[in-house]
Amino acid sequence: MKKIALTGDRPTGKLHIGHFVGSIQNRLKLQNEYTQYVMIADAQALTDHAENPELIQQSIKEVILDYLACGIDPDKTTIFIQSKIPALFELSFYFLNLVTWNRLKHNPTVKQEMIQKGYEDSVPAGFMVYPVSQAADILIFDADVVPVGDDQLPMIEQTNEIARHFNRIYKQNVFKEVKALIPQVARLPGTDGKAKMSKSLNNGIYLSDSMDVVAKKVKGMYTDPNHLRVEDPGQVIGNPVFTYLDAFDDDKEGLEALKAHYMRGGLGDSIVKKRLLEKLEHILMPIRHKRLELEKNMDHVLQILNKGTQKAQSAACKKLNQAKEAMGINYPYLS
Amino acid sequence: MKKIALTGDRPTGKLHIGHFVGSIQNRLKLQNEYTQYVMIADAQALTDHAENPELIQQSIKEVILDYLACGIDPDKTTIFIQSKIPALFELSFYFLNLVTWNRLKHNPTVKQEMIQKGYEDSVPAGFMVYPVSQAADILIFDADVVPVGDDQLPMIEQTNEIARHFNRIYKQNVFKEVKALIPQVARLPGTDGKAKMSKSLNNGIYLSDSMDVVAKKVKGMYTDPNHLRVEDPGQVIGNPVFTYLDAFDDDKEGLEALKAHYMRGGLGDSIVKKRLLEKLEHILMPIRHKRLELEKNMDHVLQILNKGTQKAQSAACKKLNQAKEAMGINYPYLS
Repeated sequence: MKKIALTGDRPTGKLHIGHFVGSIQNRLKLQNEYTQYVMIADAQALTDHAENPELIQQSIKEVILDYLACGIDPDKTTIFIQSKIPALFELSFYFLNLVTWNRLKHNPTVKQEMIQKGYEDSVPAGFMVYPVSQAADILIFDADVVPVGDDQLPMIEQTNEIARHFNRIYKQNVFKEVKALIPQVARLPGTDGKAKMSKSLNNGIYLSDSMDVVAKKVKGMYTDPNHLRVEDPGQVIGNPVFTYLDAFDDDKEGLEALKAHYMRGGLGDSIVKKRLLEKLEHILMPIRHKRLELEKNMDHVLQILNKGTQKAQSAACKKLNQAKEAMGINYPYLS
Repeated sequence: MKKIALTGDRPTGKLHIGHFVGSIQNRLKLQNEYTQYVMIADAQALTDHAENPELIQQSIKEVILDYLACGIDPDKTTIFIQSKIPALFELSFYFLNLVTWNRLKHNPTVKQEMIQKGYEDSVPAGFMVYPVSQAADILIFDADVVPVGDDQLPMIEQTNEIARHFNRIYKQNVFKEVKALIPQVARLPGTDGKAKMSKSLNNGIYLSDSMDVVAKKVKGMYTDPNHLRVEDPGQVIGNPVFTYLDAFDDDKEGLEALKAHYMRGGLGDSIVKKRLLEKLEHILMPIRHKRLELEKNMDHVLQILNKGTQKAQSAACKKLNQAKEAMGINYPYLS
């Protein structure tokens, strides 16, 4: 039997090329080797977007279109919506009893994110407990591996602590420990050189952008600010145009020559950007076409989401019942 | 339409005469004036009994027997099991996003209970968030009133804060605020004079105790430790035998005379205890008989619990859907 991989995204916007390089490409590989679940984590997105559910509702459709357009194959990958799996909420609640308040406070990933989000005393309780809800997401599907960035390792450790604690106190091996799969992937900065692509900074290239929009974004990309004249030597490191080329240009030899030329001077930004646009379009054009095709038949797309959610629901229920039986709270005398 | 009252118990043991005086009697009145829901809060009991689910499983049957034996009428009162209502877990999770971590830390009821339970850094996260889960219990059933002790007022305030916050950010009056109903009831100490009846102290008189057991427990009751000889004057205040008589003896005039006699000396403990036993048995005997009858037909009893749980489930689902619609996460395009 194939092993199980679980991944997911918070639906807080369309997917961009950072997602493509950071996770989608990896999922395209994983779906051939694993039984893959991809969760659209709307309930988790609510933990820090409680006041903006419209964004989440709109983004679900965008995200499923992005997945399918990229080649996530519903025959190999179960795509589902988190909030449609009530068993997840219930299991999360039981898990909350197995984790101390203090342990949650000291989760390094959460602490880091709190700083990023500028939370202090106003952090929502839902945000603080999301590692427990994430543990439920992972453990309820019996995931063997979860592809994560290395900053997410404390979440995996927390998940396995809960699995061990549950199995120990209820004296049954209901949950199995999961392994982090840390893919060697590039992290793409924004087109403005800032660390992350974000909608508010308008510095992302989206999988659904038209060719014109992509061309315009590439043309306006930040490069080396000291590379003023074509003849000046330019910096390659920290130059997002080259970072993108590293991710999208398969002609590594040609790319090295280009970098050398740029560094010694005499190569204009516009030529490098032209090459980047070609390489990006090589990837994005078929995705864009497939996405437009899919959009014409949204019923079919939503049917895929429906089917995936039903399949996930059935797996989750089975596992929750197993957990409740181990806990002695299944009450067989009640229907 | 009748207003709605919601109450409940954590199933962590059989009910004792402290419960009878403190809540059951009040519920017998309420069920005639309100549509009453009584929740057997097994999930909440797990927040501090995660390692002892057997106790909870056993106690559910005892508690429903106790309820019915006392006269809780399933035609007037919906008795249900909390963990069988998945909508409660889901709503609790959404509510967690509306409460700050800091607010939970400073809930006076929780702080007090943490001291009582000797929790420090080891407090389970599930215990810290139980006020939010309690808010979901109350709000999902549209309760108008919740009978509580005055120590529970901060919980009601927290519930109403959540209701207001939800209605404000999702711009619909989905949840209505609830009123605390503080019944004028006696608090019974243990038979040993300690503040509370508890199984571990073996100082409680249970509704299911046989007459012999009740007689033995009354006989062994703590009284005034300085009332050594019959002729000594005795203390009435802080003497649990008199506290119980205050709760169970309807002959207030006779009781006052008895107290006066005890205080001036010349009245032995055994006479007072005999009177208490009579008064207790006047209440307990019919309950005990009815309980024994009910036990003979457990199928029928569990059927009542089943029906109540189904009714509660249907009301809870309806309200959860209303909440999700207001939040914009009902996704009508998904089945």
